[in-house]
Amino acid sequence: MRGSSVIPAKPLYEGKAKSVYTSENPDELIVVFRNDMTAFNGVKHDLFTDKGRLNATASEFFMKMLEAEGIKTHYIRMSAPDTMIVRRLEMIPLEVIVRNVAAGSMTKKYPVAEGTVLDWPVVTIDYKDDERGDPMINDDLIQVLHILTGDELTQVKKIALLVNTVLTRFFDECGIRLVDFKLEFGKAGGNIFLGDEISMDSMRLWDKETGESFDKDVYRFNKGDVITAYRNVLKRIIPEFSL
Amino acid sequence: MRGSSVIPAKPLYEGKAKSVYTSENPDELIVVFRNDMTAFNGVKHDLFTDKGRLNATASEFFMKMLEAEGIKTHYIRMSAPDTMIVRRLEMIPLEVIVRNVAAGSMTKKYPVAEGTVLDWPVVTIDYKDDERGDPMINDDLIQVLHILTGDELTQVKKIALLVNTVLTRFFDECGIRLVDFKLEFGKAGGNIFLGDEISMDSMRLWDKETGESFDKDVYRFNKGDVITAYRNVLKRIIPEFSL
Ligand SMILES: Nc1ncnc2c1ncn2[C@@H]1O[C@H](COP(=O)(O)OP(=O)(O)O)[C@@H](O)[C@H]1O
Ligand SMILES: Nc1ncnc2c1ncn2[C@@H]1O[C@H](COP(=O)(O)OP(=O)(O)O)[C@@H](O)[C@H]1O
Ligand SMILES: [Mg+2]
Ligand SMILES: [Mg+2]
Repeated sequence: MRGSSVIPAKPLYEGKAKSVYTSENPDELIVVFRNDMTAFNGVKHDLFTDKGRLNATASEFFMKMLEAEGIKTHYIRMSAPDTMIVRRLEMIPLEVIVRNVAAGSMTKKYPVAEGTVLDWPVVTIDYKDDERGDPMINDDLIQVLHILTGDELTQVKKIALLVNTVLTRFFDECGIRLVDFKLEFGKAGGNIFLGDEISMDSMRLWDKETGESFDKDVYRFNKGDVITAYRNVLKRIIPEFSL
Repeated sequence: MRGSSVIPAKPLYEGKAKSVYTSENPDELIVVFRNDMTAFNGVKHDLFTDKGRLNATASEFFMKMLEAEGIKTHYIRMSAPDTMIVRRLEMIPLEVIVRNVAAGSMTKKYPVAEGTVLDWPVVTIDYKDDERGDPMINDDLIQVLHILTGDELTQVKKIALLVNTVLTRFFDECGIRLVDFKLEFGKAGGNIFLGDEISMDSMRLWDKETGESFDKDVYRFNKGDVITAYRNVLKRIIPEFSL
């Protein structure tokens, strides 16, 4: 395991899939992508060798890609294959979801069939709170509950849709359909940054030809070997990748 | 009960609290406010003498008040104390909720205490579908699922907030706090009309002084005699009312 000289023993925050540690630099945090896989708000839980590294690698790759497009992200550098040094953010307790194709909860809640291509990308936002089951929230509530100002919310949604444009185009070239994904944002020095992760845990990815899932749905619905699926994504997005 | 000469035996639609019948005039429907009281999506169900009449009377009163303010409603006339003749609408499957004070599901889903006065009235919208448990929906989804166009949605929210302004002012003069309420809209001849009901079943009403509930929460949470509560509202809003 990791030496205590690099990472303090007690994490600042132990999430469902990542552990977050403080570092000597008060503006930086150390995020370790663990091998834990959870679904259905933690009801399903397993460990998969290499899972942390695969997600960390994907996250690094996409954070760099988005930085190159002018999007502010928390990414600073990798300190190990599963460990990302990030800018410390005051997290906004929202899960910002962009959907291009109807899938998952959307098809359970509304009369739209799985796989329906939406006429335009839509943003849905959940209030991030495990104990409350991450309930959906709307623009009015976000403002009246003083979670974000109207300007900040506009900014967050604009960034989310820009991320969608960049990622959709890139995945398409890799033969993958970006169905939907979840982002988390935070604030530092008066600016809004993209935080958390962009990984196979936080996106729905379907093979363009076969419709096969390459994401957490493989685990959620026992569709096969999730690590093979995650590795397939990395092989497609980073041709020189091997693990 | 009612003669078959007035109301056909088989309703067009038998809802949880009202029955809707066709009439000789294809543009009109007959809405009978029944004595059924339900809560928690039909899990709790009871009958209360006079309940239908009390809600019908309140609904008539408010529909007329809103018409006088220039709001298009489905109200045409009463044909009996519990029976309203309305314009037949193609209903929009949305429950449009306006909230002035945090209460009910809002306090369960988000970190805000019951009774918190909101800085401004907020609109939240549920997709009306009993089988799906009336899930919350947002502006983006309403448009991408082709439930309403952007213009129609703007119109619906504008009307809902105007209804709130009119009702809040009126209730305040009656010593009652309008905490929140639910509206349903429908279309006829290219126009949007306010439909359904405005009653003690569809509003949260608190005594301005004591905070006492005068609405369906009395039934939901066994706070006392619900018919007394409903009658109290009618006495306050229509001084000459007696039943
Ligand atoms: N740059 C950052 N600064 C502070 N906290 C962050 C940052 N990026 C992500 N986080 C938070 O760290 C946690 C990551 O661990 P994770 O296992 O995803 O947790 P969770 O179970 O809450 O989703 C999340 O709560 C996330 O909001
Ligand atoms: N003007 C109208 N035209 C057609 N349908 C209407 C009109 N006003 C209300 N309705 C519908 O009639 C039903 C009223 O009965 P209710 O007991 O409230 O039903 P529900 O259990 O669906 O809420 C509702 O489904 C409502 O949407
Ligand atoms: Mg997380
Ligand atoms: Mg109803």
